[in-house]
Amino acid sequence: MIKMQELLLIGIGTGNPDHITLEAVAAMREADAVLIPRKGDDKSDLADLRRQICAAHLDDTGHVVEFDLPVRDGSRAYLDAVHAWHDAIAEVWQAAVPNGAQRVALLIWGDPSLYDSSLRIAARLDPAPKVRVVPGITSLQVLTAAHGIPLNTLAEPVVITTGRQLRDHGWPVGADTVAIMLDGSCSFTQVVSEGVQIWWGAYLGMPQEILVSGPLAEISARIVETRAAARVQNGWIMDVYLMRRAII
Amino acid sequence: MIKMQELLLIGIGTGNPDHITLEAVAAMREADAVLIPRKGDDKSDLADLRRQICAAHLDDTGHVVEFDLPVRDGSRAYLDAVHAWHDAIAEVWQAAVPNGAQRVALLIWGDPSLYDSSLRIAARLDPAPKVRVVPGITSLQVLTAAHGIPLNTLAEPVVITTGRQLRDHGWPVGADTVAIMLDGSCSFTQVVSEGVQIWWGAYLGMPQEILVSGPLAEISARIVETRAAARVQNGWIMDVYLMRRAII
Repeated sequence: MIKMQELLLIGIGTGNPDHITLEAVAAMREADAVLIPRKGDDKSDLADLRRQICAAHLDDTGHVVEFDLPVRDGSRAYLDAVHAWHDAIAEVWQAAVPNGAQRVALLIWGDPSLYDSSLRIAARLDPAPKVRVVPGITSLQVLTAAHGIPLNTLAEPVVITTGRQLRDHGWPVGADTVAIMLDGSCSFTQVVSEGVQIWWGAYLGMPQEILVSGPLAEISARIVETRAAARVQNGWIMDVYLMRRAII
Repeated sequence: MIKMQELLLIGIGTGNPDHITLEAVAAMREADAVLIPRKGDDKSDLADLRRQICAAHLDDTGHVVEFDLPVRDGSRAYLDAVHAWHDAIAEVWQAAVPNGAQRVALLIWGDPSLYDSSLRIAARLDPAPKVRVVPGITSLQVLTAAHGIPLNTLAEPVVITTGRQLRDHGWPVGADTVAIMLDGSCSFTQVVSEGVQIWWGAYLGMPQEILVSGPLAEISARIVETRAAARVQNGWIMDVYLMRRAII
């Protein structure tokens, strides 16, 4: 049996099928198989978007292979559970590759470089394929574009971090702009809100996109309510936000 | 005379014309005029790339208008000089808009959100047009893709900052991964190199792309030499790098 020789990790942007780059389209077309994760019914919109992108850009959608992602063990410590989950995903990827498919593509939400574990999972594959990354638009870029704001203020730094880090360590030292990803807990409620502006977005790039921005002290509760209601209505939510503090 | 009603700031990625997204192509085609800055002969490759993108995606390149960017005053304090320069660019933009062009596009290197001043310059326009941002692939994403590395380690923060900040304030507190942009001075030579890996790239996405990576202590001098030689050979250089410190 011929094994997978090359793995293409292709960023597809986030939510809007037109976020895709010409480079990503070309890479998809070069692949012998395109693997698409089903995320379960709660995030079926995301699997649908990948199917839609394949239908738009592949001549032969017979190359598309869907697979079920394993579930992360919520009973274990966070990092332990993540490592075990990545091991399991690597096995599922390997099993999903059709016989004879030498060049295999995965369509990655956003960009494979940013809070995405595809590269770490790919490193677990044995035998190791050659890995090629095609960058894609991240949700953070869609957020700043939608709000019409720059990520950084002039010549100043930005910290990109997670909700968990913000809760555990507070506002990062040395930066007045903080972008928060992977926050299921509205961790913006836990920072000192005085002088802080927030730009929040959910379902970025999708038809149901929601944007809220303003002084954190005034709109924190509104974001919490908006998020909870949208999550119920859609059955799932993905959101991201930027906070900027007046320079003290 | 009909004034500019809408300004489209369109990220075009960095170096490779196939970095462009389908959304960016559609936005270019909607514009009545596409403004292209000439950067002077030293960075003519960049103006050429914009012309190439226009030729590939516009039916009517008669809509393309080239303009000369003013020069920043190197004799003034950095931020003062930048503010005055942005004032001057806003005037040049306004003067370059052809009569009757209501929807005007600017092709922005990388993404308008990241260490780019187009949004700040657009805010100076009077009367103020509606501004729409289309995100594009950043040099940082091309860097991590080319090296096949993630931006962040698992669930950990990243600081994106400038060479100047790194020189003035040292390694940022609270993050083991630092991405450096706008560094004309090889500021990586000024940090404690023990336990630090660096991934450096110049002319990312372009035919003359150069990548160097390894332990900072071992390859710092090689990057300095490579950078100086490439700058002489090409007449200009744009580079970016990521440094990651072993968690202490």
